[in-house]
Amino acid sequence: MTLYHVIFHIDEEEKWPLLLGNVKNLLKENMAIEIEVLANAVAVSDYQLEPFIDQMRNLSQQGVQFVACQNALNAQHIVKNDLPAFVSVVPAGVAELVKKQSSGYAYIKP
Amino acid sequence: MTLYHVIFHIDEEEKWPLLLGNVKNLLKENMAIEIEVLANAVAVSDYQLEPFIDQMRNLSQQGVQFVACQNALNAQHIVKNDLPAFVSVVPAGVAELVKKQSSGYAYIKP
Amino acid sequence: MTLYHVIFHIDEEEKWPLLLGNVKNLLKENMAIEIEVLANAVAVSDYQLEPFIDQMRNLSQQGVQFVACQNALNAQHIVKNDLPAFVSVVPAGVAELVKKQSSGYAYIKP
Repeated sequence: MTLYHVIFHIDEEEKWPLLLGNVKNLLKENMAIEIEVLANAVAVSDYQLEPFIDQMRNLSQQGVQFVACQNALNAQHIVKNDLPAFVSVVPAGVAELVKKQSSGYAYIKP
Repeated sequence: MTLYHVIFHIDEEEKWPLLLGNVKNLLKENMAIEIEVLANAVAVSDYQLEPFIDQMRNLSQQGVQFVACQNALNAQHIVKNDLPAFVSVVPAGVAELVKKQSSGYAYIKP
Repeated sequence: MTLYHVIFHIDEEEKWPLLLGNVKNLLKENMAIEIEVLANAVAVSDYQLEPFIDQMRNLSQQGVQFVACQNALNAQHIVKNDLPAFVSVVPAGVAELVKKQSSGYAYIKP
């Protein structure tokens, strides 16, 4: 079975419900797939918002990687310790988007 | 001549005029290209809207593939028979976006 | 060191500050990278707007390519001579997005 890879990009807070729905739909498919969600700009602030955190934690337990951009966290005055443990941090979200696509990830911007 | 492939992604109704203009511009180029338009979320509802349908039908007659996400159709209470015959349906729009990029399609989100 | 390539796509005027911030963050990373910014639709009109031009000129001096879509310039009644010298023009922005991704560029839509 082909192993697929995808990185979802979000930089607008209002797109979180659509993005989380997209990820849920993707997990229901009979595909071998690695899913990363990369948030930068103001969208990182929702890593602190209930009820998003509950949905994200549930998805992370199904293998979805949630990632925040350090530049964005700095701009929003958020420190890593303020984030749920399942969220990892990269120095620059845009560099992550480039590197992952360069290694074969598809890109989706809901 | 290189054969190019592209999948356009739309999940917002208000982006249809821009997307259809993008596709028309692309068809005017001297390129061998396969073009797919993948609509999910609320954007699938415009597959029922005149005058978009006339423009889409014209583009489909030039080889453009118009595709709707079944999950989105369900959420909008639209059944396949309500759609123009030139629109095809896939189980999950996001899976289609991943698979097509994995097989070499470029991605454009107007 | 891997040489990365990325094309940023912008078709909305209000996304310029976010896009320019993305590009600045990317340049701060320790990566070998070629960066192109492709503007189409109404977003081309900001190639005439101070203070964006100053920021863009500074980035262009660091190697970032700024590109405008001729179809969009026509629609906005802008001629190439109205643009800063560092902006280049392609016949169709969407064709540029397809060709660059086909040659290995990552795609980012802020």
